[in-house]
Amino acid sequence: MSLTRIAVINITGYIGAEVARLLCRHPKVEIVSVTGRTEAGKRLGSVMPHLSQLDLMIDPAPGEADLVFSALPHNASAEAIVPLVAKGVRVIDLSADFRLKRAEQYQQWYDHTHPAPELLQKAIYGIPELHRSEVAKAQLVANPGCYPTGAILALAPAVKAGIIKADIIVDSKSGVSGAGRALTLATHYAEANENASAYSMAGHRHLPEIVQELQALQPGETLAVTFQPHLIPMTRGILSTCYAPLAEGKVAVSQRGAAEVQQLYRDFYKGETFVKVVDTPPQTKQAWGSNLCLIHPTIDLRTGRLIVVSCIDNLVKGGAGQAIQNMNLMLGFPEAMGLEGLPVYP
Amino acid sequence: MSLTRIAVINITGYIGAEVARLLCRHPKVEIVSVTGRTEAGKRLGSVMPHLSQLDLMIDPAPGEADLVFSALPHNASAEAIVPLVAKGVRVIDLSADFRLKRAEQYQQWYDHTHPAPELLQKAIYGIPELHRSEVAKAQLVANPGCYPTGAILALAPAVKAGIIKADIIVDSKSGVSGAGRALTLATHYAEANENASAYSMAGHRHLPEIVQELQALQPGETLAVTFQPHLIPMTRGILSTCYAPLAEGKVAVSQRGAAEVQQLYRDFYKGETFVKVVDTPPQTKQAWGSNLCLIHPTIDLRTGRLIVVSCIDNLVKGGAGQAIQNMNLMLGFPEAMGLEGLPVYP
Amino acid sequence: MSLTRIAVINITGYIGAEVARLLCRHPKVEIVSVTGRTEAGKRLGSVMPHLSQLDLMIDPAPGEADLVFSALPHNASAEAIVPLVAKGVRVIDLSADFRLKRAEQYQQWYDHTHPAPELLQKAIYGIPELHRSEVAKAQLVANPGCYPTGAILALAPAVKAGIIKADIIVDSKSGVSGAGRALTLATHYAEANENASAYSMAGHRHLPEIVQELQALQPGETLAVTFQPHLIPMTRGILSTCYAPLAEGKVAVSQRGAAEVQQLYRDFYKGETFVKVVDTPPQTKQAWGSNLCLIHPTIDLRTGRLIVVSCIDNLVKGGAGQAIQNMNLMLGFPEAMGLEGLPVYP
Amino acid sequence: MSLTRIAVINITGYIGAEVARLLCRHPKVEIVSVTGRTEAGKRLGSVMPHLSQLDLMIDPAPGEADLVFSALPHNASAEAIVPLVAKGVRVIDLSADFRLKRAEQYQQWYDHTHPAPELLQKAIYGIPELHRSEVAKAQLVANPGCYPTGAILALAPAVKAGIIKADIIVDSKSGVSGAGRALTLATHYAEANENASAYSMAGHRHLPEIVQELQALQPGETLAVTFQPHLIPMTRGILSTCYAPLAEGKVAVSQRGAAEVQQLYRDFYKGETFVKVVDTPPQTKQAWGSNLCLIHPTIDLRTGRLIVVSCIDNLVKGGAGQAIQNMNLMLGFPEAMGLEGLPVYP
Repeated sequence: MSLTRIAVINITGYIGAEVARLLCRHPKVEIVSVTGRTEAGKRLGSVMPHLSQLDLMIDPAPGEADLVFSALPHNASAEAIVPLVAKGVRVIDLSADFRLKRAEQYQQWYDHTHPAPELLQKAIYGIPELHRSEVAKAQLVANPGCYPTGAILALAPAVKAGIIKADIIVDSKSGVSGAGRALTLATHYAEANENASAYSMAGHRHLPEIVQELQALQPGETLAVTFQPHLIPMTRGILSTCYAPLAEGKVAVSQRGAAEVQQLYRDFYKGETFVKVVDTPPQTKQAWGSNLCLIHPTIDLRTGRLIVVSCIDNLVKGGAGQAIQNMNLMLGFPEAMGLEGLPVYP
Repeated sequence: MSLTRIAVINITGYIGAEVARLLCRHPKVEIVSVTGRTEAGKRLGSVMPHLSQLDLMIDPAPGEADLVFSALPHNASAEAIVPLVAKGVRVIDLSADFRLKRAEQYQQWYDHTHPAPELLQKAIYGIPELHRSEVAKAQLVANPGCYPTGAILALAPAVKAGIIKADIIVDSKSGVSGAGRALTLATHYAEANENASAYSMAGHRHLPEIVQELQALQPGETLAVTFQPHLIPMTRGILSTCYAPLAEGKVAVSQRGAAEVQQLYRDFYKGETFVKVVDTPPQTKQAWGSNLCLIHPTIDLRTGRLIVVSCIDNLVKGGAGQAIQNMNLMLGFPEAMGLEGLPVYP
Repeated sequence: MSLTRIAVINITGYIGAEVARLLCRHPKVEIVSVTGRTEAGKRLGSVMPHLSQLDLMIDPAPGEADLVFSALPHNASAEAIVPLVAKGVRVIDLSADFRLKRAEQYQQWYDHTHPAPELLQKAIYGIPELHRSEVAKAQLVANPGCYPTGAILALAPAVKAGIIKADIIVDSKSGVSGAGRALTLATHYAEANENASAYSMAGHRHLPEIVQELQALQPGETLAVTFQPHLIPMTRGILSTCYAPLAEGKVAVSQRGAAEVQQLYRDFYKGETFVKVVDTPPQTKQAWGSNLCLIHPTIDLRTGRLIVVSCIDNLVKGGAGQAIQNMNLMLGFPEAMGLEGLPVYP
Repeated sequence: MSLTRIAVINITGYIGAEVARLLCRHPKVEIVSVTGRTEAGKRLGSVMPHLSQLDLMIDPAPGEADLVFSALPHNASAEAIVPLVAKGVRVIDLSADFRLKRAEQYQQWYDHTHPAPELLQKAIYGIPELHRSEVAKAQLVANPGCYPTGAILALAPAVKAGIIKADIIVDSKSGVSGAGRALTLATHYAEANENASAYSMAGHRHLPEIVQELQALQPGETLAVTFQPHLIPMTRGILSTCYAPLAEGKVAVSQRGAAEVQQLYRDFYKGETFVKVVDTPPQTKQAWGSNLCLIHPTIDLRTGRLIVVSCIDNLVKGGAGQAIQNMNLMLGFPEAMGLEGLPVYP
């Protein structure tokens, strides 16, 4: 049986490299072409030694393939993708270019006029746990941002059920690989090690994704969401701690109420392979290297607040792993194919 | 001129060791006696090599001194201190034993009947920026917890000025040294490295301190405070991100409002040596090894929420450094004496 | 087709857990029984959350299995294994108990009389690249220590070819997981982070393994080997830098000589899946999470010394991965089955 | 009494910033002028927040000063310094430009014709423990490299006493700050974290310094030195492990011999404030943030090899601290003035 042919655009960033690493384990596909932004013509293994085994050259442009992943930065990604979509190729875009439904929002947050606004409605926001059937039929999947994945999965059950007020805070702590492979002072080892900081306090680009997806679950009410990201000294992982006051009359502020909320979450994610509702506060290491999202909801009994903690690996469920989960849906493969690996511990 | 004689009880923990390290730079005091929990009779330098220069034996009990620091855990600390206080010795307690004013609260949070409730009113909660004159006259200072120091300093100006609603969230991220030198699986290197987690989700012992001190600044209104600590993979530092909705009609939800809040904070901490209100989000590394607390308040213009970030070194301003700042006040020395060092960078 | 039944003794240490993690990817085996030293009767997932998916109880003793891995510490491992061997079960011992051929050497280095010296000759030292055919037939495989794996693979080609003098230094740098999951001050996060140290300067237990295996490749000459291990602040990985003067008249001290040495190494490891001779100094991250051993030999042209650097993941090629490679040989499976994963990067 | 006026050229690198941080504690000097390579005209605190307290502007060129530190890279440093020296200003150069005595060696290792070879003999190599009296009289001090400091101090007593053969290996492990503040992929957090590697295997620029200084202690014999540096994931610290065969007939290969070697080392460094010969293998953390060099010599009894481990903070004794130690000698201040701080622990 022939393998499905895959191309990876911009394999030389962390997300692109992780797509490649994970695809190597997948029994039904083969990577036939990879590109990089500056390294065309070199052997992949000379640029990314851990991918030597792939034995590919870095192409200047993606070769013919049945499905293409784009791991380019926003704007550059749309430029590369739009022609492919026009030709009917199925595409999973790991950039932000097709995540927001409204072109003016894209303009506002990315300082750039969207080059193909007509595709925004066509693109499916690729959180399989929320949009599984649409992803399966999509030609173009907008793979979610790393922060939105953890935040949306942590809050979706509560928002959908209407058990919280429309007043949400997401406090996220991310490992440094989330900032990418491009060199910056903030990600220079001696600066990032033994250091923690908040950033993008005037508003982070992942906020509108979070709002868009949560709002869709509770259209009747306008959500007020504060999203505050932080950089902490580790390579992989995002821990999101989410806070919202309980809506009145829905859930008791008690141990029993907390148990009910946990049951609500368990029901919401029943049957999901990758989203696990856990009994104790999860740790990012428990998802490290895997496609898992671990979620623990509880109630602060002193203040009547829902607190939900979620953990993901930012490069897997927050990026490449989720992209492959989407690919499996699009190609009719078992959803977890190639993603079965357990977290790496310790 | 003779030096003031200092004893350090339980120098063999991280806080006790840091008290000793900082006192070594102080020109007006000398450490005359140190104790440890299990190492009595050994040379200090054989147990704590970085303190070899001190050339002291570990005593079974503190020798005669003009002022005593206790770095014992709670409960053990009160046992050691109460007799000293009775003898008239001036004491700075780095444990939690004298921080809470109400004995029943101590009972509730520390599962232990307070051994000397009569001292609770006499003890001064040692945040110099809030209680400077009382500290100066105190015989017994309860040195604040590491988390409360960062949280209280971050919120005090806003609470005092009444610009926020009584609905506060403190999301804190701490380095691992905050968990002390006792061995646990959570602080085992291979577990803590490349890992982040929330803990004490049912309520952390530092919450009542935070509430007590903030409530005292705004007695008319009952504060609802959620305090959620997290462990992140670094040795030193606490970053606290504090959220509270702005009270109506006090501050405009605008850039101008944000500037007014920053001015309010600057005015509140005017003349303070160790608390710096900064223009951009601070990083824990900017306080590393120093007694600084860096604070950045801003407004989330989308939701009308005050967000304040504070950074401290948990072992310095969050522990030993603040204790020495208190000592300076008690002994009539310049408040910053011995604490002048800049943060260690990188 | 039925799966081969595997038991893992002492799954609750880092090596045991890694055996389990890797076996989960293996298509031909299933773990039917696991034991722990203190946690019998608990669900595996409650003790090791990242293994929740395995859905096993921790047994007090290993159940019936076709092959057993023992990840107990030395001494305890022999106690558990000897009866199994007597019953004819195939066993891979990840402890040191069957690595040394001479019982008196075991006595000397492990302070313990060997309980089954008659098995020492029967046990095969499980480096497949050196003992492939014997491993395939073995009933009892002594899986090598983490340091010896990196050191032996780095030096075997040179020793075998006789191109170096019998005067070898191995300077190894290990991540902290090599010290295991038991709590010690040296592996307490705040002690191990931002710290590096040499240890076991009077002689490390892995030295006799290194000597035994290298000596067997060059029986005519008594090797003098200095092995100095170091602890460095990372979770996984061992970098070994090996030094030895070139034998006279064998290899030219020149670029050409260095190229010849590299070719000698390439020839020695020709066809090996897991040992890669690379053109530039390798990094431990390039083996991270994989069963690879990366080796780079070169010549210090100023002193005529061979320098060889090798990198492994101490828990994979230095432990669990190599054990599974051995298992594959013993069971007649393709040698790389279940071990195909690329290194995790970044 | 007036303070000595100090200028720091290129304060915006890690070494320059550390010079400034340490000078702030010095009671006899004041920094009057600082320069940076690209930030002239900005407030120092806006570029280096931890130095805000200094309240200086970054000048385009150093202002008038009694003594100047240059923390420029090699080549640029000589350009800046030569005119100052010509004007009679006392200078401490933290670059490599004046460390090597022979201009052709400089040419060979730094690919650049030395711009002022006549100054090479005049410059004093600033290891106070070896060249104290010359440093005191020097107009131009070449501050040693970080690696050479640890290596030379570890080996000087043995080389001087002639107890080892002229066949030395220095295996050094450095924290990442040693690579400076300029951005590179190797020092990008996600690359350097959880990673260790050897580099400069064809020869590192610090080798000729090491050879020059050791050779001067034993002129009769040509030393063969292999120096192999490694990058390990920590911010500060260098651990050097040095190996050399014992000369015949000088020291017994026995415990007693090892004790004699330790005594030889103790005698060599008797009275030194910053070099400590210790009884057990030291850890880099025991020197962290301080000007200490900790040294532990021992004998590998199996091979008759001397092994010496040394630990320094690469930015302090390996850079800025040693520079200030040199400054104190040059200005007639007590040698340890401003450098009294204990190591930072944990």
